[in-house]
Order: sequence, then C-alpha cells, then structure tokens
Amino acid sequence: MPQFLSTKDADFESRFAALLSAKREDSPDVDDVVAGIIADVRARGDDAVLELTAKFDRLDLTAAQMRVSEAEIDAEIAKVPEAERVALETAAERIRAYHTRQMPKDEMWTDPDGATLGWRWTAVSAAGLYVPGGLASYPSSVLMNAVPAKVAGVKRLAVTVPTPDGVINPLVMMACRIAGVNEVYRIGGAQAVAALAYGTETIAPVDKITGPGNAFVAAAKRRVFGKVGIDMIAGPSEILVIADGENDPDWIALDLMSQAEHDESAQSLLITTDAAFGQAVADAVEKRLETLERRAIAGASWRDFGAVITVRDLDEAAALCDRIAPEHLELCVDDPDALSAKITHAGAIFLGQWTPEAIGDYVGGPNHVLPTARSARFSSGLSVLDFLKRTTLAKMSPDALRAIGPAAETLARSESLEAHGLSVTARLRKLNG
Amino acid sequence: MPQFLSTKDADFESRFAALLSAKREDSPDVDDVVAGIIADVRARGDDAVLELTAKFDRLDLTAAQMRVSEAEIDAEIAKVPEAERVALETAAERIRAYHTRQMPKDEMWTDPDGATLGWRWTAVSAAGLYVPGGLASYPSSVLMNAVPAKVAGVKRLAVTVPTPDGVINPLVMMACRIAGVNEVYRIGGAQAVAALAYGTETIAPVDKITGPGNAFVAAAKRRVFGKVGIDMIAGPSEILVIADGENDPDWIALDLMSQAEHDESAQSLLITTDAAFGQAVADAVEKRLETLERRAIAGASWRDFGAVITVRDLDEAAALCDRIAPEHLELCVDDPDALSAKITHAGAIFLGQWTPEAIGDYVGGPNHVLPTARSARFSSGLSVLDFLKRTTLAKMSPDALRAIGPAAETLARSESLEAHGLSVTARLRKLNG
Repeated sequence: MPQFLSTKDADFESRFAALLSAKREDSPDVDDVVAGIIADVRARGDDAVLELTAKFDRLDLTAAQMRVSEAEIDAEIAKVPEAERVALETAAERIRAYHTRQMPKDEMWTDPDGATLGWRWTAVSAAGLYVPGGLASYPSSVLMNAVPAKVAGVKRLAVTVPTPDGVINPLVMMACRIAGVNEVYRIGGAQAVAALAYGTETIAPVDKITGPGNAFVAAAKRRVFGKVGIDMIAGPSEILVIADGENDPDWIALDLMSQAEHDESAQSLLITTDAAFGQAVADAVEKRLETLERRAIAGASWRDFGAVITVRDLDEAAALCDRIAPEHLELCVDDPDALSAKITHAGAIFLGQWTPEAIGDYVGGPNHVLPTARSARFSSGLSVLDFLKRTTLAKMSPDALRAIGPAAETLARSESLEAHGLSVTARLRKLNG
Repeated sequence: MPQFLSTKDADFESRFAALLSAKREDSPDVDDVVAGIIADVRARGDDAVLELTAKFDRLDLTAAQMRVSEAEIDAEIAKVPEAERVALETAAERIRAYHTRQMPKDEMWTDPDGATLGWRWTAVSAAGLYVPGGLASYPSSVLMNAVPAKVAGVKRLAVTVPTPDGVINPLVMMACRIAGVNEVYRIGGAQAVAALAYGTETIAPVDKITGPGNAFVAAAKRRVFGKVGIDMIAGPSEILVIADGENDPDWIALDLMSQAEHDESAQSLLITTDAAFGQAVADAVEKRLETLERRAIAGASWRDFGAVITVRDLDEAAALCDRIAPEHLELCVDDPDALSAKITHAGAIFLGQWTPEAIGDYVGGPNHVLPTARSARFSSGLSVLDFLKRTTLAKMSPDALRAIGPAAETLARSESLEAHGLSVTARLRKLNG
C-alpha cells in the first residue's frame, strides 16, 4: 500500500515535504574506480577498452571486432518480427516529425544604430550515444536520442552498447539502422564513455555524449563533461497523475504502474480531488499487482515511494505539482488544458484520459528523455538543441562604431581594461579623421 | 614574442597540435575543501556562511547584514559618475534588445493522426548570479548574466558578490539596479554557491546558478549541479583573429592584447594570409606592450600562448579555425560574411575591421559569456535559454489513440514493460467496444 495524504490533514505539510525529499536512489560512490578507468583508456586506448570488456562483459574481442559490422547488423535485423519493425518505424517517423519542428531559426538584423546582429545554429560534428545493455537496453531510447541528433544535422553518430556474453539485442540494432546511426561499438561502462570522449585507435572522439546508464556511466559522464558536452544525468523515473473522480480507476492504476515497473526507485504519485476515487485506484493497483509480470519491481516502488494525495480542488493540485516538478505529468480531468495552464514545472504533460504516459514513451513524438528528481524546475527534456550550438554574430558599420563605441571605451576604462578601450579608440580616431 | 607558424612548414601539424592542447590553466584540486564548505553550509546555514566570510573576506557580518540594503545600494550608486551610468544603461538596453529577440516561441499543432502536440517555455522561478570580487568584478558581466535572466522572466534574481575588507564596487551595484536584480548578498566563494543552491535562514534557495568565479566557485558549481542548474564552467579567455594584409597592424595588435590583458592564461591567436603583415602585428604588439597598463599580464599571455600563423589562403584559415573552435573570432578580411559562412565552430564572430571584439564585451548586444577551451564545438554562449525550460505537451484524441496506440503496445511488449502496454490496451478496449 502506498501512503495516503490529504491536504486537510494537520500533518500534511511535513509528510508532503518528506515525500519530496525522500532519497530514492542509492548512489554508490564509484568515482575513484571510474577515474581509474578513464585514465587507463586515455593512456592505453583500445587495449584498455578490450581488457575491461573482457572483465566486465565476459567478452573477448580484438580491436577490429569492437565495431559491429554492417553485415552483423543486417543479420540481427533479419531476426526482428515484421510488427516490431513497423512499430519502430512508426515511432521514428513521429519522433522525427516532432523534433523537426523544434529546429531553431537563424536570425540577422540591422538595428537603428547601424549594427548588424544575429546568430546562427550549427550541429555538433560528432555525437556518441550510450545505450545500456541487458534489461534496460531499450530500442525506444535509441530512437529518442539518435533521431533528434540526426534531425539536428549531426554527421557522425556513434553508439556504444555493451553486449554481455556477446548477446546482441536485434531491436537495438534495428533502431540504430532506422535512426541513421553511423557506427555501433559493442562496449559499455565507463570505458565506453572514456573511449567516446578521448578516442582510441579504433574509435574517433566525439563532441557530445548522451544517453542513460548505470552509476559508472553517470560518473564517467560527469568526469568527461567539459572535454565533451553531455546531456543530463538521469535519475529514477517519476509520474504524477492528477485525476478527478470521473476516470476509470484501472486506467489510472495502469498508468501509475507503467512508471513503477521501470525500477524499484521509480515514484508514482496520484493527486485527486476525490478521496474515494483515490482509494479505488489503490485497490485497482493491488489487483493489477497480483498478475503483472514485473510485480516485484512495481510493487516495491509503489509501497516505498507511491502516494495518493487528496486535495480540495485543482488549484491546490497545481500548486503541489509545481513543488514536485514531475518528470511525467498526466492530467485526467474535465478540462486538462485549463489545468495545464496553471502549472509551471513539469518535464512533459499528457493531457486528458486518452493520453496514457506510455504513448509518450514510444510513439507520441515528444522526447521521453526528461528531467527527473525535480530538475524540471530548471531543465528540459532532450531536444534538437542538445545537438546544436549557437554562434553569435556582430558587424559594426563605421556609423555604428561611432554611435556605441564611446560607451565601450567608458566601460573598458572603468574595468581597468585599457587595451579593450584602445581597440575602439584607435578605430574611432581614424573615423573621426 | 609569440610563436610563429606557417602551414608550409614541415613541422606545422605537430606544432599546431601542441598549440591546441597546451594546458593553459593550473586547476588546483580544491574539491575536498569545497565539499567540506558545502557540507558545512548545508548543516549550519547562515552561521557557516558568516564564519567563512570572516575568514576569507576579512569581514565580520551578522546574518542581517549579509544582504546589501536598498539604501546601501542607493548610496553606492550615487558615487557612479554620470558618463559611466549612461554607458551602463546603453549597454543594458542593447543587451536587452538582443536577448529579447532570442525568446523562443511556444508551439501547438494537431497532426494528421489527431494527436495534438507541442511545447511551451517557462522561466526558472529563481536564479542566483555569482559575481567575483576584487579585480575581476566586472559590472559588464552583471549585465550579461542578469539581463537575459530578466528577459526570460525570472522573478527572483539574487546576486552574491564578495566584498573583501568590506569594499563594495559601486558600478556592480549600479549594474544590479539597472538589470533589475532583486537581492544582493555580500558573500562569495564556495559558501555563496552553497547558500544559493541549498538556502540558509537568510537566503532562499534558487533553481539555477550562473556566473564566473575562481577555482573554488567552479568546483562548487560542479558539485551542486543536479540540485540546481548551472551554466558552463568557464576557462581563460581566447581570441582568434583572421586577417588579410589590408589591415592596420596596430588595430589587430590591440584586439589581440584586449584578450591577453585579461589573464596570463588567456590566448591570443592571429591567422593571416600575409606573413609580412603577421610580423608587423607582432611588432605592433611589442610596441604596445611598452606602455599598456596591464603589460605584465598581457605580455606573459602573448609570450606563453600567443601565436601568429601564416596560411596559404582563407580556406585553410577556416579549417584551422574549426579545429581551434575559438571563444571569440574576429574576421578582418575583405568579405567577412563569405569567410564566416565557411566556419562551423566559434562562440561569437565579429565581422569586419570596424567590429573590435571589445564592442562585444560591452555594448554590441550579444552575450560576452561564451564557450572557452574548444567547447564551442558543442556549446553556446549564455542566452535566455539558460533561464528557461521547455515542457512538452501531448493530447491524444480517441482516433489518435486508435491510430498509434497499437505501435506503443507492440514496443512495450518487446521491451517487457507490460503495464506500459496495458495502459494503452485498456483504453483501446473501451474505444473498440
């Protein structure tokens, strides 16, 4: 059973605060190990990567075998059933359409002083995408990372995916092919992140690394940040459903369980205006937990971190939501658009009862890589912008320099940066004859 | 004297590579000290901040005195000469105009399947801006950080600026006032970053921290990343000037020195198609170094990290530029727009001989907080986007769920996420009667 809270309870504030600050993830301190692995890969390149792959993935490779050949990818793809191929292609197409709309525009204008200003966007030249191995090796995540990179215009996209004991996931290979991934390497862990960031004899370095991973991968991404760009460091997944009493309790129960089944550290929260409905959802969850394949995981998440919160009205729901800043937010109410307008902090919003969050995980179009652990207060889901950078442009006409140069001279002097000022003064002297 | 290189030299490639990889900054390992300071501020709040301020800034404060009062700000501002006030206002107005154009648009559309999709942008609620004390306390940097935050719509903007021995910089106060900063605290170092990130009795926590600082500040920002958002970790400044022989050597010399005077670790590079012009610039630099106020700093930077590179043509210059990925790029050539179009990696480009880089530092309009140390390969200068986050939106009609739901069911099954699939299945069952 999850926690039941009501904003009418005297102890609500302290219990809600405890819920917000609950430490859901044990982050083992692997930083020293990871520092050693990165140093080893920088020093010995391929040799280090191969040794670590033999050790961690029980897989002996030569340098030439690190890369999965096109023929191998073809062979893996041939194993994928038709329905799954079609579903992946549908997902890729919808993700591509959504992210294409995100492409920002270049601008250039001349202002009244005669200064021509603007900016332009360009893609990073090479990006690396980390794909986890084993159970968390999701082809949908390959699409969610690789498609935006390709829409942004990244020319070289390299995937690393560990294949413990040599087992390759055919759907991951299919997703790589559909998304236009250029290179696939069967390596993982901190050694893969190090190889992508610094390069080895076999793997050319990239400029940006994205994608989820375990504690070793996360620590490695933090360490190489600065040498290359990284995306966010993702924590366990969360969903908040805000529902009135006019919903099917089983649907909401399934939506809550679709987060809970990811991970015992996942968090599923329901806020409702109807206490009886909240109880009905909790009952429906118990029923579903009798049969769900991943009931051990989902049950633990729901018991340890789940909560049903009864509120007086939807305004109260919106205010609590902003304090939670949920990764996923489902609004199952009569007028979801009106409620959505009252909410400031959320990674992704799913509007209305026909939009289960799982649609967003696969085929909605928006990205499923979203800010966790309340970071929607200050960050956004993955987008084409993660694979682009902006160069600002400025061009002064002689008149513009005459107009605004003196202010620059004054400020340079006040900051004791003489050469800054003189670089303007020398030009103004010429202009003013 | 700087290094002289030519692409015609047999050893060019190795010398250029050495120039690229030169370690310009000694990063003292202050991480343990900083970890201790952050833990102390989290545990003891104001008391810890006050003790550390007494220790590092030789300044005894009470908690109530941490914040600079409006009356104190008024008194400081009254000391600012009229010309400097006007120059700051001119700068702020131009920065505001440029960054207002950066504001991204919300979008919402319905696709052929009946799925309504989109996104919306919202500002972070509260941001903290770190302003260094002492020599590097630049009012222009206050504007470059604070104005974009306010244009983005940040409601609460708190500045921390250390005031060693109690000395306040009036121009920094003026810049805070002009930019609309809401709170100013006279604290600095890792303790200020910790106070902004975690809050104390006196200082409410923020969601995002930006602004430059020394090694302690940089290490603290890295450590609080995740709890709050941060901007980039800036390294020493750089400029690359690409110039043909048709320029005044003294102007180019001053442009190079305007970076070199920042810091002994700064780097000033000239690429030219005309070896004789390169020598003339080097001579002009020597002449200027006889009299520049900051000649000790500028001279050391130029001697240790400066270089004059002669190339065969501008195409070669563009290719080298992309390998450098300079923070600042000045194009002093006959057709700067044509050359600009050939360049992919640069933080900011200054086009033509009437656009000295110093214009961009103060009054051009684009931001002067730019990616250093080759990170223009994957990151951008500060912008309104640093103070905004995007929430994605999705709303399925029953028809849309009918159209794309089955693909989600298929993919959920293939990823062994049963509840994901069932959340769609339950709804489709109802729809299909």
